[in-house]
Amino acid sequence: MTSHGIAQGSSSTNLDPWYHHYADRAAGLSASEVRALFAVASRPEVVSLAGGMPYVSALPSDLIRSAFDRVMIESGPQALQYGSGQGTPALREQILEMMALEGIHGSVDDVVVTTGSQQGLDLVTKLFINPGDVVLAEAPSYVGAIGVFRSYQAEISHIAMDEHGLIPEALRERIASLTAAGKTIKFLYTIPNFHNPAGVTLSWERRLEILEICRSHQILVLEDNPYGLLYFDAPPPQAMRSVDEEGVVYLGSFSKTLAPGFRIGWALAPHAIREKLILANESAILSPSSFSQFVVSEYLRTADWKGQIDTFRGVYRDRRDAMLEGLNEHLPHLNWTVPNGGFYVWLDLPAPLDSKSMLPRAVKELVAYTPGTAFFANGNGRQQMRLSFCYPTPDTIRLGIRRLAAVINGEIELLNTFSQTGQVDVSRRSERVTNPPPDMN
Amino acid sequence: MTSHGIAQGSSSTNLDPWYHHYADRAAGLSASEVRALFAVASRPEVVSLAGGMPYVSALPSDLIRSAFDRVMIESGPQALQYGSGQGTPALREQILEMMALEGIHGSVDDVVVTTGSQQGLDLVTKLFINPGDVVLAEAPSYVGAIGVFRSYQAEISHIAMDEHGLIPEALRERIASLTAAGKTIKFLYTIPNFHNPAGVTLSWERRLEILEICRSHQILVLEDNPYGLLYFDAPPPQAMRSVDEEGVVYLGSFSKTLAPGFRIGWALAPHAIREKLILANESAILSPSSFSQFVVSEYLRTADWKGQIDTFRGVYRDRRDAMLEGLNEHLPHLNWTVPNGGFYVWLDLPAPLDSKSMLPRAVKELVAYTPGTAFFANGNGRQQMRLSFCYPTPDTIRLGIRRLAAVINGEIELLNTFSQTGQVDVSRRSERVTNPPPDMN
Repeated sequence: MTSHGIAQGSSSTNLDPWYHHYADRAAGLSASEVRALFAVASRPEVVSLAGGMPYVSALPSDLIRSAFDRVMIESGPQALQYGSGQGTPALREQILEMMALEGIHGSVDDVVVTTGSQQGLDLVTKLFINPGDVVLAEAPSYVGAIGVFRSYQAEISHIAMDEHGLIPEALRERIASLTAAGKTIKFLYTIPNFHNPAGVTLSWERRLEILEICRSHQILVLEDNPYGLLYFDAPPPQAMRSVDEEGVVYLGSFSKTLAPGFRIGWALAPHAIREKLILANESAILSPSSFSQFVVSEYLRTADWKGQIDTFRGVYRDRRDAMLEGLNEHLPHLNWTVPNGGFYVWLDLPAPLDSKSMLPRAVKELVAYTPGTAFFANGNGRQQMRLSFCYPTPDTIRLGIRRLAAVINGEIELLNTFSQTGQVDVSRRSERVTNPPPDMN
Repeated sequence: MTSHGIAQGSSSTNLDPWYHHYADRAAGLSASEVRALFAVASRPEVVSLAGGMPYVSALPSDLIRSAFDRVMIESGPQALQYGSGQGTPALREQILEMMALEGIHGSVDDVVVTTGSQQGLDLVTKLFINPGDVVLAEAPSYVGAIGVFRSYQAEISHIAMDEHGLIPEALRERIASLTAAGKTIKFLYTIPNFHNPAGVTLSWERRLEILEICRSHQILVLEDNPYGLLYFDAPPPQAMRSVDEEGVVYLGSFSKTLAPGFRIGWALAPHAIREKLILANESAILSPSSFSQFVVSEYLRTADWKGQIDTFRGVYRDRRDAMLEGLNEHLPHLNWTVPNGGFYVWLDLPAPLDSKSMLPRAVKELVAYTPGTAFFANGNGRQQMRLSFCYPTPDTIRLGIRRLAAVINGEIELLNTFSQTGQVDVSRRSERVTNPPPDMN
């Protein structure tokens, strides 16, 4: 993790002889709040509920070592060489098998291997966004996607969610108002399964309705699905791409189902878009790592990768349970989402608590989280926070929630003692649902 | 290698429902001539002098296997995890040691690890180029760099070279004329050592003069140096970055000194630019592959990497010699550059031969090369070709040159038989020097 915080970045511009030479889009490159937290959260005494690192220790390293040995013996020179900008045919076939588990059928010709699905986001955005074009995204949305959209000078318009995911009616209204204002909407970015950070899953009925809305307005859907196979009970509804070949670019990743260190993700795109994605990929990196692709491919060919995903599911289910138990025990008066998969719980704070300004106090109490503001392009999210249960053990998660509760309850008590305007509202809701903030964009 | 040629890409746009949705910059993404050639050249009966693939079989695979085994035993979970957007501190330290061989001294804080140096090119261009901004580049220049510059809508202005590299006086004049025309010049892109494709090396005196010209006009220098350590006799002059910390972004790569399959390169940048490069890297890919970085780092720590580079030097020197012998024997009436390192010879054809239109005939005769047009943004280069000696064995290179000579001499004969305008000029020059075409940009 780096030690370059926001403050350092800002102050250095005054001394930067190249300050007036940067492209306009460089103004959109700013250090994310998640990034500044990495440095803090890496201190061993802090319980970090902030990061999104998968628990790779649940992956037996022997599986990777034996895959690697076979690769070097059987295909060493190819694994060390440049490859195609689209990725190896063998891996693209295996990616199709994996996507079939979520109802997706496609051609190996339409898969493009990327340097993690983050690069898929970058390439699609580079391909479609002129400065000022609109990207629709859930409220809240993935911090790394917001960063990419900003870096190409997109205008990000957040659409409200509830416990069933993105609200179709809100999408319809927003498209109407943006269109009336003369805006060009290029695509809808959505994370339908076990949303990062909101933890909710888009219902099947809504998937169909949203696809129909986007189709009728010629808006491309960018479906980001890193967590779909990591469900805890029943699988989520099938992918949006499973029922719409021409209107969806689907992004997948091995970062959560195998390991992020390989940096191997993929895009499945309509034929013409796929052709341009390959060119954009070649321009950006020439070709994805042959070395990583060969090892991942050999692992998929020989290891029980479905069994390994079952193992991950069990690990993350236990951690989710530990987090929910802790919240029920220590913060019963608050609201949070109950995820059926993935890595994240989204917690509402009672007004006027502020997740961003409360963070230093939490870190002093040796617990870290991600303030909700990281997941909005418009300054919203001060009354929410994202809690990650992916990396710490269940016992550590319980400890972290206990510490967090002490901070939150301490803040509430302090406010109630000195408040001129009455008690902080901590009435517990009857249901645990997402409660997105008023959308101000 | 992919099978998606230029024709397929073009015809599919007619059927593309998203055709009117792409960003303006997408028009700059086109299939390179090198790419179309990859498909042709991969047929085993064709001697390919077209590609730039290093001869990775000269790298003992045991060295990589033992490095990998130690990584997985000692640092498995870190190697499989996300890392910092800047790259691992250990690898950045080792990169400094490597750069010290070329006279560069810097801070480990100012190194940013990238997904090959191609991604370094992409990030610097994304950071600096607004549509219409000018990038100065040698005439000819690296095809992959031209592609990146185009993809961000830069205007590429080629500057003449001779056998000592970029000509300072031509640079000075071009800056004056562009400035007078109200253009914004953002950086000079240069490959000082064993130029791709021209094969020449920039002299020390010119390095200093060019740095001074750029400094006085506040033009950043982007020094791309993938081949510097692969010299055949004496080392090239020290890097431009060795004498200018604030005005140069230096790009390095392990693709030629180790293997391209890892996709590990780096940028060494002035402090403020480095900070922005890290943010751009995080936005594009979150972090470079930990898996690749750990293996490369362990290889550098434990293997005799300098000895291995000596081995590569010997391999490529033999191949260069085979190519020059073949040219001297079969095409003594033509001109070519004599590289003292790297991968490439640049060959001049006598007028009116055309390297681009001659290529199908060459492939029919089972030899491939890269037409000079691939290395110009302005349509120049029809009377040049790039010949790569990096991948085929010396015997195969001799066979390839024999076939190429048959094609070229056949064309000359045909033209002389039917020409109305006199004999083709095949008078041999007294010296083997670069003979760049008239610069038309």
